[in-house]
Parts: sequence; C-alpha cells; structure tokens
Amino acid sequence: MAEITRVALDAMGGDNAPGEIVKGAVDAVSREKNVQIFLVGKEDAIQAELVKYEYDKERIEVVHAAEVIEMAEPPVNAIRKKKDSSIVVGMKLVKTGKADAFVSAGSTGAVLVGGQVIVGRIKGVDRAPLAPLIPTAKGFSLLIDCGANVDARPAHLVQFAKMGTVYMEHIMNVKNPKVGIVNIGAEEEKGNALVKETFPLLRKAEDINFAGSVEARDIPYGKVDVIVCEAFAGNIILKLFEGTGAVLISKIKEGLMSTLRSKIGALLIKPALKETVKSFDSSEYGGAPLLGLNGLVVKTHGSSKSKEICNTILQCVTFKNQRISEKIKDCIQAEQKSAE
Amino acid sequence: MAEITRVALDAMGGDNAPGEIVKGAVDAVSREKNVQIFLVGKEDAIQAELVKYEYDKERIEVVHAAEVIEMAEPPVNAIRKKKDSSIVVGMKLVKTGKADAFVSAGSTGAVLVGGQVIVGRIKGVDRAPLAPLIPTAKGFSLLIDCGANVDARPAHLVQFAKMGTVYMEHIMNVKNPKVGIVNIGAEEEKGNALVKETFPLLRKAEDINFAGSVEARDIPYGKVDVIVCEAFAGNIILKLFEGTGAVLISKIKEGLMSTLRSKIGALLIKPALKETVKSFDSSEYGGAPLLGLNGLVVKTHGSSKSKEICNTILQCVTFKNQRISEKIKDCIQAEQKSAE
Repeated sequence: MAEITRVALDAMGGDNAPGEIVKGAVDAVSREKNVQIFLVGKEDAIQAELVKYEYDKERIEVVHAAEVIEMAEPPVNAIRKKKDSSIVVGMKLVKTGKADAFVSAGSTGAVLVGGQVIVGRIKGVDRAPLAPLIPTAKGFSLLIDCGANVDARPAHLVQFAKMGTVYMEHIMNVKNPKVGIVNIGAEEEKGNALVKETFPLLRKAEDINFAGSVEARDIPYGKVDVIVCEAFAGNIILKLFEGTGAVLISKIKEGLMSTLRSKIGALLIKPALKETVKSFDSSEYGGAPLLGLNGLVVKTHGSSKSKEICNTILQCVTFKNQRISEKIKDCIQAEQKSAE
Repeated sequence: MAEITRVALDAMGGDNAPGEIVKGAVDAVSREKNVQIFLVGKEDAIQAELVKYEYDKERIEVVHAAEVIEMAEPPVNAIRKKKDSSIVVGMKLVKTGKADAFVSAGSTGAVLVGGQVIVGRIKGVDRAPLAPLIPTAKGFSLLIDCGANVDARPAHLVQFAKMGTVYMEHIMNVKNPKVGIVNIGAEEEKGNALVKETFPLLRKAEDINFAGSVEARDIPYGKVDVIVCEAFAGNIILKLFEGTGAVLISKIKEGLMSTLRSKIGALLIKPALKETVKSFDSSEYGGAPLLGLNGLVVKTHGSSKSKEICNTILQCVTFKNQRISEKIKDCIQAEQKSAE
C-alpha cells in the first residue's frame, strides 16, 4: 500500500478563502485515497464550509489558528508576530513532521519567509527558489527562481538548475530536461555580470542538461524546460507573461464585440477559443513549489479556486511519492562532495 | 518655411534590405516635403531598387559604402574594422553634421556601439539608452533602457527617466508623462539593490512626474508612460512581450482552424481581429531611438518593411523640429548644475 501524504492547507489564504479552499480539500480526498488533509485556520469558518459536503471525515481534520496574515502585511514581521496565524501554524506542522507539505494561496511574502525560517532549508541548499510552471506553445516550463531571492549569486543559480531538473524529471515526467539561463542574446559573451559568471559554472555542472542561453523571446515557445534566472528577472517574466496574455485576450474579446459580423463569428469560435485559452491556464498544474526545504511548501495563486487547490494537493502526493526532497538533497550534497 | 531634416539611412541593414529600405525612403519623401535622405550602402544594389520608382531625385542621394556589417559579427570589432560599412559611413554623416539622424534595421549591437563611439554622447549624458515604444491597452509606453547598458547604476536610471520624459512629451505628445521604475512589488521597500537605491533619487528628481514602482504585470495595461529599467530587465520585457504576443496569436489561429464551426467563425471575425492585432503592432510608431547622442540614431526591427522605415524617417523629422537633442541637453545640464 502506498504511503499517506499529509498536507497542511491554509484555509484562510487567498481571495476565495475559506470557501474554495475547503472545496478543493474535499475534492482532493475524493479523488485521491492516499491523502490526509489538515485544514488550518478559524475553526468556525472552516466548519461552516465543511458541513456543505459529504466526505471521509477520517481524512480531513481542522486545526484551529485564530489569526490571519493579510496580503499587505510586511512578511518578516507578520511571521514573527502572528504565531497563531494559519501560515505559521500550518508550517509548524511540516517542521514537526506532522505534515509532509504546506499549501497556501495567501501572502507570497509570508509563505517565502515562513518557508525559510520555520520549515528551513535542506542542509547544503543556500537559497530556496520559488518555481512556478508557465504554459508554453509546447506544454510548460519551470521558471526558477521567481520571487524569493533578489540579487542571487552564481552558485545559487547552479543549485536552482539542479533542483529544477529534479522537479521536471520526476514530477512532470520530462526526460533529461533542457536547462537554459535567461540572457539578452544567444552567445556566451552576452549578458550582465551575473550571467557571465554563471554560464561556465552551468556548463560544467553535473546532473543537468545545459542548453545555454535562452532569450526572453523564446520562453513562450518552450525552448527549454527549466528556465534559470535570479528572482528579479523571474518575477518580471512571470508577471509580464500573465499581464500580456490577459491584455491581449481582453483586446481580442473587445475586437470580437466590435461589429455584428464579428459577434456572430465570436459565437461560432467560442468553444475552440476556450480550449486555446485553457491551454494557457497555469492553474491546471497546481501551485508554485518553494524548492530545497525540509518538506514541501507550495504557493498557489491568490485567486485560486477549488480546482487549483485540488490539483496542488495531488501535486504534493506526487512530490512525496517521488521522494523529491531526498533527490534534491542527494544532488546538492553530491555537488558539495565533488567541490571538496 | 520649416527646416529640412537630413536622414542617413542604412540601405543594407535588416532582413529586407535593400528593397524595403529603399521603398521606405521613396515613400517618406513623397509624404514629407522637408526631408532629405542619404541612402548609404552598395551603390549598384541601391540604384537597382531606385529605378523602380518615380521620386524627387533632389531629395534622395546615394552614398556609396562597400562593406556590410552582418548580424552575427561582434559589434565592437565590426565598427572598428569595417570603416567602409553602411553603418560606419552613415553614422559619420551625423558626426560631421551632414545628416541630422541615422536609421538602421541592421545589427543592434553595431548600432549601439557605433552610436556611442562615432556619433558620441551629449556632454553630461553618462549612458545612451535604447528606448522602443511598446503597445499597451491604452496606447503605448516608452521602455527605457532596453539593450545598451547592462548593470547600469542608479544615476543612469535617473537620466533615462528624464530623457524618456522629454521624448514622450515632445514626440508622442503625452502631457506630463508618468514615469515608473520596474519593480517586483508596489512598495518602496521592495526590489533589488539597484531599484532600492534609485527609488529615492527618482522621487526627488526635478522635471519628471514620478509615479513609483511599476510591476511587470501592469506594463501591458499602460499604467505608466515611461518605463525605467536597466537594460537586462528591459531586454527581457521587450522580447518576452513580443514572444508572448506572437505565441498567443498563433495558438489562437490554430484553435480557429480546429473545427469546421470555428473555421466559419474565423472568416467572420477576420476583419475585427486584424484591427486588434494591428493595435499591437509596434511598426506603426517607427523604430527605437538611442537617446542622449549628438544627433539622432534610430534602430528599427530587423524585419522592417517599408512602412516602418517610412514612419521612422517621419519620426526623425519630428525629433529635429522639436529640438529633442537640445531639450535633453538642457535637462541633463540643469541636473548637473543643481548637483554642483
């Protein structure tokens, strides 16, 4: 029998909490039998949602936490002061080994800070990168790092490349994933100081399939599977990608409503267009993992609905079954042995 | 009578040279009477195109240059060695005052290097930024800097903000343009070391309307008119913007061809969709100026057709008539006086 994956779920995080979060948990236990969920947050509010559903009561447990960290709060302060918040209480379940993973749609900053200071990094991992999947023309690519560590150093980027490779290979089933470093040209001599220093380190790194530079223009085409960059660039890529897609689609919709002829056409293309837009919908893949920690921490979109929450819980199951943390540990520690 | 603007045009640069470049020149002299064009490049090849058209022969002159700088050549070397290339000969026309502006669809690197070493910077300008217009939901924004200077310093970004303001105000007629610095969050304490140091300098800078941070997500919505960033980030923004748009549109077209129903719908929406796609077509606005030089240098897309070349030549006329170089000089020198 497979092991049980225990997921601590922040019931209070995100725009649609607790309703959609609780629904996502209920959906997950009905779809996957080897999962146990701790719904962390205000007990009354969570129970008021849970009573709406039929579910296996053995597998969803409410863990009360009286406080909520708001989106706008400075994260370091919030993690330090709100000891009884759903994020701090949920992360402590991972820290103490009661849960394998923590999932939140709440404050990104608080999740990043809490991951590092409460859950803690795997020995040898210098920085824990946030690594969302982004949809591309070919499928999806992992963008690593994308929010946790601005002004990273070359050695950090090499670890990102290794951790991203493990994730894509074992969670997303991409064989020998291609790794590219974000750059402003294809040639090795191009780039800023960070990229120029990192390039030769990636070329000689073991355990990765380094494909050289990737220009931003090629990212949406899915030229590489693991897109390595420091967090400032990664954040720009992620946010611009989302913003450009949203504006373009809304402009197209506006265009379709501009004439009677185009309105009729719009009715006819609606089903096909819906499929296309869906292929660019990252909620299909679950949330963004914070890699390199002693346990899994996943940040989902603030606007997450039950589908993204449910998919993220299933992603936690794969993460545990594939022993990703152990694989990351092995690969980082091998790097350090070979450096000794 | 208005002054004549003299434009040196690289007839050999870009994917469609010399055919589309020559056609663009012919279109420009027929649309604007106060312009004189030097077509720089291989005389035979240029004449073979010119004979196809009727045009005012007084206003288009061929300046022979025997060499061509290829896209893949290392730019510094190319500028130094190919003294008789169309880029070097064209830029020298600006340097010696025979032309007001130089326009090329050729190697971006060579144009950037040549601009700095041949045309030269205005006294007081530390770096010459490349500043393309990017289409947004509201119209367009100026992205500055986007290719010339990786690892810029805070004082450079302040100059970019000022030069961008002059350009948007006097070339694009945006009153009191809003300036934003690219950042990973809206709050002042967010950002990498460069942004944190630059933020207070922008807040106290005179002659600009500083609106604080702009997140990448808000760029396509046109939240600010002048988007300030260092070139590595700017290059990512420009290229990702282009790449995402292209992939999304091709995916949508593919979706439209997927069923008979959607194919019929596609025929009906085609005119409306074409208008929408056109509003995202940056060739409407001409090329990207390299600002802060002793004369105007403009880089157009490598794939430029005659329309973009013609629009860029007209943009050079506005640049001269509005005395943009003088305005930039005044504004940078005022900054330095107030610092003394």
